Amino acid sequence: MQSFELLSQKFALHFDQRHFPYEPASLYEPNEYFLKMGGKRIRPVLCLMGNELFDEINPDAWHLATAIELFHNFTLIHDDIMDEAPLRRGVETIHAKFGDSTALLAGDVMLVTAYEYLNKISPACLQTILRLFNTTAKEVCEGQQYDMDFSKAETVGLKDYFNMIKLKTSVALAASLKTGAILGGAGERNQNLLYEFGKKLGISFQVQDDYLDAFGDPEKFGKQLGGDILSNKKTFLLIHAIEVATDKQKKELQQLMNNNAADKVEKVLQIFQDCKVDEWALQLKNKYLDEALVHLEDIAVLSKRKTPLQELAHYLVQREY
Amino acid sequence: MQSFELLSQKFALHFDQRHFPYEPASLYEPNEYFLKMGGKRIRPVLCLMGNELFDEINPDAWHLATAIELFHNFTLIHDDIMDEAPLRRGVETIHAKFGDSTALLAGDVMLVTAYEYLNKISPACLQTILRLFNTTAKEVCEGQQYDMDFSKAETVGLKDYFNMIKLKTSVALAASLKTGAILGGAGERNQNLLYEFGKKLGISFQVQDDYLDAFGDPEKFGKQLGGDILSNKKTFLLIHAIEVATDKQKKELQQLMNNNAADKVEKVLQIFQDCKVDEWALQLKNKYLDEALVHLEDIAVLSKRKTPLQELAHYLVQREY
Repeated sequence: MQSFELLSQKFALHFDQRHFPYEPASLYEPNEYFLKMGGKRIRPVLCLMGNELFDEINPDAWHLATAIELFHNFTLIHDDIMDEAPLRRGVETIHAKFGDSTALLAGDVMLVTAYEYLNKISPACLQTILRLFNTTAKEVCEGQQYDMDFSKAETVGLKDYFNMIKLKTSVALAASLKTGAILGGAGERNQNLLYEFGKKLGISFQVQDDYLDAFGDPEKFGKQLGGDILSNKKTFLLIHAIEVATDKQKKELQQLMNNNAADKVEKVLQIFQDCKVDEWALQLKNKYLDEALVHLEDIAVLSKRKTPLQELAHYLVQREY
Repeated sequence: MQSFELLSQKFALHFDQRHFPYEPASLYEPNEYFLKMGGKRIRPVLCLMGNELFDEINPDAWHLATAIELFHNFTLIHDDIMDEAPLRRGVETIHAKFGDSTALLAGDVMLVTAYEYLNKISPACLQTILRLFNTTAKEVCEGQQYDMDFSKAETVGLKDYFNMIKLKTSVALAASLKTGAILGGAGERNQNLLYEFGKKLGISFQVQDDYLDAFGDPEKFGKQLGGDILSNKKTFLLIHAIEVATDKQKKELQQLMNNNAADKVEKVLQIFQDCKVDEWALQLKNKYLDEALVHLEDIAVLSKRKTPLQELAHYLVQREY
């Protein structure tokens, strides 16, 4: 059983190579450019860990992990177009550098290339893995649509936000783990427990994401704090604050959101603290982490095989950046 | 062996049903809306015909044909965004009606749904068909990228235009036929001959497309003639005209393209005729049709099985709209 760090390094060695043809360069160079931006590669490594929880790593798992990472990059390229994001990891996004049309096509061909890697999986597992991959891909698109819908909505309920996060973030983590487990020969019960572990971990991860944007340590966070507040993004924090705030606080929040005053972040944070949103978020995050770990505990393999996943789960939801 | 018309009707019965979930409606209603626009359904019927050339229609062929038609619609949705096309078949395009972001996601989820149908194919053929499907999908993206590059280029060579048409149009027709043939149990030699038939037919089809836009019968064509001329689109006709025109004609063409004068179409058509571009195009079209038919002839099945494909080939390249 290998740690996340070790498997990350091994995956990087495997993944950091050319994935696209040379011509037309106007299409494929943007793809290569985007992949060179790097990333945490969480999903493919979860796939490898899901595999290794049950058995030695199956050679097909490298193809699957590659497909999963390419799929993730496809979603990022298209999300950047939709969000009109100029930068990602401090570097120009594809649509900003090469234009919307090229970014659209580059994303399309990235997705097709993911399916090319999937098709290298041996026939015994191909259909089962493709089925889950396709379902998950649709769910991720649905999540992105809900996210866009929410950004235009006046208010969003906590339940709807949970559902959006489940679709946009959690199921991809869960499916990465489960497809890896399938290649590792896991039984159905174990597969499903691992999937639930991934789903709960995804929620916990997102709560931490929302939390850090508001309450992170500026030195460690690496980005400007309060970005979500400035853009009125409906996060776990804002949605909960609106639910528990007094009428006076609600009115103040609404005014702050309508006017981008210089002290907007500071004042919204004060309301969040007055409403104890920070404590609530930490409790919520830990609740989902704990539930995730119970699912992992229930998986019928030797406890020591679970150590790397337990460590990773703690790390992901306690990271400070 | 069934005719194109009969198989079209059967495919319509099969295809004209709901293909997407109900929620989120903001994502899936645009997909259903787009499919309801209809279309000639040439590619899926080619798939069924490719199958029936060798054997009775395999139940999997209906899944495959559905996937092929969904893939085609995915390309149309994304092409419409890139081309900023307000209408398709006289109806508002998805991006015009629902916005670019929704159109982008609707296309993405249409592509994933195509893969869901592919994954219904029995394991014995799945990997082979997926391989060709993926290769073709990448080629279609490459063709679209070349098409966009050409629209910005000063000049385009005939050879490069042929290559673009091969990628953007021909290979999809060829792969539709060949994947159908694979399900029909065709041997490799026959599969490849059918693929070459499709590729040549695709070129011939595109020459006719370009020809009709300039020299079609306005009453039968159904669209304004000269649309390609008005938009300075590099077509077979324009590229050939520039190659054979005298210096004086070339200069005049260049002036006409730079200024959108009221008599632009009329004058460009006159140069086309003076350069005998119309005769050249008809010869080119027939040359590719003939070559296509020779490949079909070479396929080792009873001649009478080939009749529907021969009829369809003649129809596609002689249609007047």
